[in-house]
Amino acid sequence: MADAVDLIRAKRDGGRLSAADIRWLIAAYTAGTIADEQMAALLMAVYFRGLAGDELMAWTDAMISSGERLDLGGLAAPTVDKHSTGGVGDKVSLILAPLVASCGAAVPQLSGRGLGHTGGTLDKLESIAGWRASLSNADIVRVLGTTGCVICAAGDGLAPADRRLYALRDVTGTVESIPLIASSIMSKKIAEGTGSLVLDVKVGSGAFMTDLAAARELAQTMVELGAAYGVRTSALLTRMDTPLGRAVGNAVEVAESVAALRGHGPADLVEVTLALATEMLRLAGLSADPGAALADGRALERYRAMIAAQGGDPDAPLPSARHAETVTADASGRLQVLDARAVGVAAWRLGAGRARKEDPVSATAGIICLAKPGDAVEAGQPVLELRTDDDSSFDRAREALAGAVRIGPDAPEPAGLVIDRIG
Amino acid sequence: MADAVDLIRAKRDGGRLSAADIRWLIAAYTAGTIADEQMAALLMAVYFRGLAGDELMAWTDAMISSGERLDLGGLAAPTVDKHSTGGVGDKVSLILAPLVASCGAAVPQLSGRGLGHTGGTLDKLESIAGWRASLSNADIVRVLGTTGCVICAAGDGLAPADRRLYALRDVTGTVESIPLIASSIMSKKIAEGTGSLVLDVKVGSGAFMTDLAAARELAQTMVELGAAYGVRTSALLTRMDTPLGRAVGNAVEVAESVAALRGHGPADLVEVTLALATEMLRLAGLSADPGAALADGRALERYRAMIAAQGGDPDAPLPSARHAETVTADASGRLQVLDARAVGVAAWRLGAGRARKEDPVSATAGIICLAKPGDAVEAGQPVLELRTDDDSSFDRAREALAGAVRIGPDAPEPAGLVIDRIG
Repeated sequence: MADAVDLIRAKRDGGRLSAADIRWLIAAYTAGTIADEQMAALLMAVYFRGLAGDELMAWTDAMISSGERLDLGGLAAPTVDKHSTGGVGDKVSLILAPLVASCGAAVPQLSGRGLGHTGGTLDKLESIAGWRASLSNADIVRVLGTTGCVICAAGDGLAPADRRLYALRDVTGTVESIPLIASSIMSKKIAEGTGSLVLDVKVGSGAFMTDLAAARELAQTMVELGAAYGVRTSALLTRMDTPLGRAVGNAVEVAESVAALRGHGPADLVEVTLALATEMLRLAGLSADPGAALADGRALERYRAMIAAQGGDPDAPLPSARHAETVTADASGRLQVLDARAVGVAAWRLGAGRARKEDPVSATAGIICLAKPGDAVEAGQPVLELRTDDDSSFDRAREALAGAVRIGPDAPEPAGLVIDRIG
Repeated sequence: MADAVDLIRAKRDGGRLSAADIRWLIAAYTAGTIADEQMAALLMAVYFRGLAGDELMAWTDAMISSGERLDLGGLAAPTVDKHSTGGVGDKVSLILAPLVASCGAAVPQLSGRGLGHTGGTLDKLESIAGWRASLSNADIVRVLGTTGCVICAAGDGLAPADRRLYALRDVTGTVESIPLIASSIMSKKIAEGTGSLVLDVKVGSGAFMTDLAAARELAQTMVELGAAYGVRTSALLTRMDTPLGRAVGNAVEVAESVAALRGHGPADLVEVTLALATEMLRLAGLSADPGAALADGRALERYRAMIAAQGGDPDAPLPSARHAETVTADASGRLQVLDARAVGVAAWRLGAGRARKEDPVSATAGIICLAKPGDAVEAGQPVLELRTDDDSSFDRAREALAGAVRIGPDAPEPAGLVIDRIG
């Protein structure tokens, strides 16, 4: 009989756990036989020792097996999904899902909520009157069949072991472990039943991974896990040093997404969205041109159908904040740095994000970047607009922005947003 | 405000925690504000990253401050205690405390119970009819004042944070961490109020530390901690590859201790006991000869007074086991190895030890080593006698002894039991 302490000690000492041991561990933890403190110690040992390939497979497998799997086999179109490791101003999913659907794929975009300085896709869409994040499995398949895309919450039935483990990792300082991140993301995506998957692994100050080598390792690990499960998987490593687009928040990001779907998106947002769309269509075996679908309104049409299918009114005005203040340039020159993390934390403090998963978020709070790196600015010119319904939050938001804006004589070296493709 | 997750992450990433952070962590854990899973993750991070000198001081300090401190300042004699990291057949405390007391010191030997393959001093003494392990603080001081020595349970009031932390370490695979071991031992000994302390750090197959370098590091760490608190502290590193003496168990070890106090102790047991006594007397500033005190019956007299002062009858016959079986030599020659750990585990399975701290132990179960390494044996000659009240336990005890006895043509190289002195 396996004993939790023996397995913790084995991992701690650099040993390998058998597939049977790992199955037992995850099942016993989900059933409550293994206590939180024992799993916490094991997770910290995994943080230090990692998981070998076969251990990671068994771990992921155990999480998938802890719940149900969606069956998307009845859809006529090839299924393809995207997962982002999260960034500041990252509203790509809102544009990408309808765009790729308009090119002939079915996009089952099961999403999460924001935590900390990065926002959540569901939080953003909930600023649309009437829109519902929760769908039954039958509704997911129905909306996918009719509109070609759905953005909704992953149901409680998918990889429930991951839900418990993630909550534990969150309070025990064991989130930042590549095998644990990889198995958490991939178990949900594999259980979701998508045929192909493109991973947007973000790197930079505003990303979960600030280090390129670690981001590359995470991408490689997830691509291999996907392949092992028969999910065609690839990853783009993309830069996240400055907010993506100009809007950071909830309603403000929906508005910017709609503008992009109308052909008026900021260049960086459109660049990343099209790169991911091209990759998704490649994996799905489709040859449509996503640039054309964005330009001619087909993507926008899918977006409106998707919002309506989930109870939302795409024509309802978005709520706006009661208070706004600006942050101005303290010198003239070129904007060299607009730090993504600082802007993300400031938006969070204005009310756009949450510290605990049970906290509410404000639909209206957020930040508009009036200038982006490379832009010429003059001293005293507004660079950021802070928006909130709670004007007592401005001070703490400004504190978070200390040092976030850097102005100098020269523009920064221009760099493409897509650093590399893996898989 | 300190946040548990931030502190876990800081330690995980190799940072140093401030004294204020550590004080908060231990106090909040003891108060229940920090959850077991968070402390478990922190302990595993400490296992991997260690604690720097100032962190260890703060950690130990926080554990001492979690409870009361005994005040032994009113005693006329200098106080000196001994702590052993635990071995198989290690009944030294039973002889040493009265021996050192008979040489003029006061010995406040606050002890623990056995767990796993090593026995506990209190479990052994409880095989004496009427003897009580639990004394009030006032009784401890009174017995010390009248008989010069006391062997009893550390009260719940001493370092309660250590009690909670130890229980957590036990189930989370975080026992084997040098700073955590050092702070656990030293916080209790410092709270106990002894003026001097000798540490018996055992090394070998039957010891907690099987590696000499690690044992040396542990000894060094504890000696430094003691010095920092004004406790004169030194350590002997002693061998624990084969049981100490011939008896392993509870009543059988009491009987062997009394024999040693009567001048008939096995050579290895007497060697270690006298080395520790000499060291204790040196630290206490006393010049008496412990060999003489053992030979002339003064130590025995103190032992009898101590047992009687705690309600025990030193003349009561010790209980004996209902069943006995022998393990015989499978070849003729010299006994080369009699593995301490295997004998300890076998005695435990016969009933002498416990797997969980709430389990009872058998007073009568145990093993008598009829031959010791270096002895000439003939094939078929009994080498071990296994004793138990539960004859269904013989099979599992014999399993534990597989490979434990090795016979060859030559006697092993003779080696002194004291490897080194530190401090």
